[in-house]
Amino acid sequence: MPVYADPTDGLAVPVTLLQTWTARIVERLGTPADVAADVAEVLVASDVRGIASHGTARLPNYVALIEAGVMDPAARPERVGGRPALIHWDARNGWGHHAGRIAMDAALEATAELGMASSVVRGTNHFGIAGWYALRAAAAGSIGIALSNTSPLVAPTRARVPLIGTNPIAIAAPAGRFGAFCLDMATSTIPRGRIEVAARRGETLPPGWAIDAEGRPALTPEAALAGALHPLGGEERDGGHKGYGLSLAVDMLTGVLAGAAFGPNIVGLFSTEAPSNLGQTFIAIDPSAVDPGGTFEGRLEGYLEQLIAAPTVPDAPGRVLVAGEPEADAARRSTDRGVVIDAVHAERLRELGERLDVPFPATAPS
Amino acid sequence: MPVYADPTDGLAVPVTLLQTWTARIVERLGTPADVAADVAEVLVASDVRGIASHGTARLPNYVALIEAGVMDPAARPERVGGRPALIHWDARNGWGHHAGRIAMDAALEATAELGMASSVVRGTNHFGIAGWYALRAAAAGSIGIALSNTSPLVAPTRARVPLIGTNPIAIAAPAGRFGAFCLDMATSTIPRGRIEVAARRGETLPPGWAIDAEGRPALTPEAALAGALHPLGGEERDGGHKGYGLSLAVDMLTGVLAGAAFGPNIVGLFSTEAPSNLGQTFIAIDPSAVDPGGTFEGRLEGYLEQLIAAPTVPDAPGRVLVAGEPEADAARRSTDRGVVIDAVHAERLRELGERLDVPFPATAPS
Repeated sequence: MPVYADPTDGLAVPVTLLQTWTARIVERLGTPADVAADVAEVLVASDVRGIASHGTARLPNYVALIEAGVMDPAARPERVGGRPALIHWDARNGWGHHAGRIAMDAALEATAELGMASSVVRGTNHFGIAGWYALRAAAAGSIGIALSNTSPLVAPTRARVPLIGTNPIAIAAPAGRFGAFCLDMATSTIPRGRIEVAARRGETLPPGWAIDAEGRPALTPEAALAGALHPLGGEERDGGHKGYGLSLAVDMLTGVLAGAAFGPNIVGLFSTEAPSNLGQTFIAIDPSAVDPGGTFEGRLEGYLEQLIAAPTVPDAPGRVLVAGEPEADAARRSTDRGVVIDAVHAERLRELGERLDVPFPATAPS
Repeated sequence: MPVYADPTDGLAVPVTLLQTWTARIVERLGTPADVAADVAEVLVASDVRGIASHGTARLPNYVALIEAGVMDPAARPERVGGRPALIHWDARNGWGHHAGRIAMDAALEATAELGMASSVVRGTNHFGIAGWYALRAAAAGSIGIALSNTSPLVAPTRARVPLIGTNPIAIAAPAGRFGAFCLDMATSTIPRGRIEVAARRGETLPPGWAIDAEGRPALTPEAALAGALHPLGGEERDGGHKGYGLSLAVDMLTGVLAGAAFGPNIVGLFSTEAPSNLGQTFIAIDPSAVDPGGTFEGRLEGYLEQLIAAPTVPDAPGRVLVAGEPEADAARRSTDRGVVIDAVHAERLRELGERLDVPFPATAPS
């Protein structure tokens, strides 16, 4: 579930306006129009789904990478090898969003003959929300899986230094009236952004979220930001070694397999020192290959109906949810009323638009 | 990491002796010799790796299923459809261990041409430790993934009743001097067996492990056994919805995809009322498909070396571990000194051997 809820005050920008403007900014950096369209679609989809941390608010970071010569805005991914169900790509240090879209589409195409197929990508960059690629498969009637490694923010169980990423796992499938099941999770207990939110709010932290620089439980945001995140599960007693294992498995299936950077060797995703050379993997599974009657989606929908109808714990804030429901709700609101962008975010985009001579289209508070 | 450490007192049974005896017991139930050999190998591998909960201690439960006519000891899995990289099997309600071995081997064979391939199995039964199938792929130089759904013991986040399984995820890969990386984890915070251990020891439970019958945190083993397990992550605040999502994703990729039972519809795995009709999925990925130089294993080994060398937290019980290391250590001890079986376990096997006229070979305490 997203860390960032809709801002309560801010600009409401119509989705198409935001997407068109984003594409123009990306083109202005030297990116071909079709590549820029993919980048804009993925970034704005993140904002639309209420995940402001991975959307257009990051545009200035990408621009900094390109202006520092660390990322190539014009590169196109190249198919460098593999076999029919395991296609190997080199993104040639271009936009991760475009390489990811191409890679997932190639896997989807191959499922028609093979039932299941995958793409592994080396030499790529931050691709936004992993869920977008999984949902693209779901929209095509398939199960989609998207994995990425990321820069080291998480301490392996027992370690006191960050050596592995928050390496996300996204899995989606078509699910009838639910639209899609879409799990899109970091393999850490909480994302680093949640610590930053706690810092702004002056909150303390529960043990199990992070450790401080000496490896003790971090009970303040400041201590956590100087230390490392816990893998999902938290302490070893509570299964944190499982989250550590999952994070490592994601890195093994992405960076190590694809021949990209991995683990402690990945530079910060938005560091202007050197390319991050991420690894990403995309898997598509066509349920109709094993289920010619096409009943998979109905079975999944029925299962989800059983789950959301369950009696709840006494302090539940609402009914049982299905992964992806809060984001789908946010997407409906964004489509109806525009994407609500908070003041800091809007100011960053306005400055960027001014500097690149593509004026940000919304200027008045909503 | 296994719940059950080596018993400190008990019989030490040589591995081959235990495996031969187990195969003879299984054959005595009407199982063809080649099928029985698979069953014995997987069950004993669990004991050898120190996971007594999933090994020969379960033999009497399987025998009860067969004697009740609920599981077919002579069935062979049948290939019922699919496409080249997504093979569909019906285990025809036979031994899960044999169907799983056949299914993983078929996926492995297909990777030579395709790079990645999978088998999905319906109509199957408890297959022992998921890690065995993943390790079989690793022994063949591939990355292996094994998934199974199980009977409902876990409450989805916010629900107060168990509706989903502890649905395990196993992922293994060859890893140089480490032998293999092998993550083999239930998607619950802890397995139900851990609660039973706490009950025997008179321990209290931390919040985040389980809820009681009213949906409140279960702080005693008795309350937990009357309630439900938490998914990995524990409470919603600490990421429990991620464990819930992972458990559901496993069920979607096994039971729902394969056309088997799923979620709340699965009867107890060892219930003699009806077949459990589990779904299981096996995925094999051949790294040499994207890495003709064969450097994958060396890269993974080097990564693991970096992790285990990390400075540790102040209260660490030892250095950073790699998933599968404790089980590999137990396997070395078992191979050297025999599988150590505790008194209750030994008595169960002795009784079974007597009843089926295949005397258990070890009778004296070690």
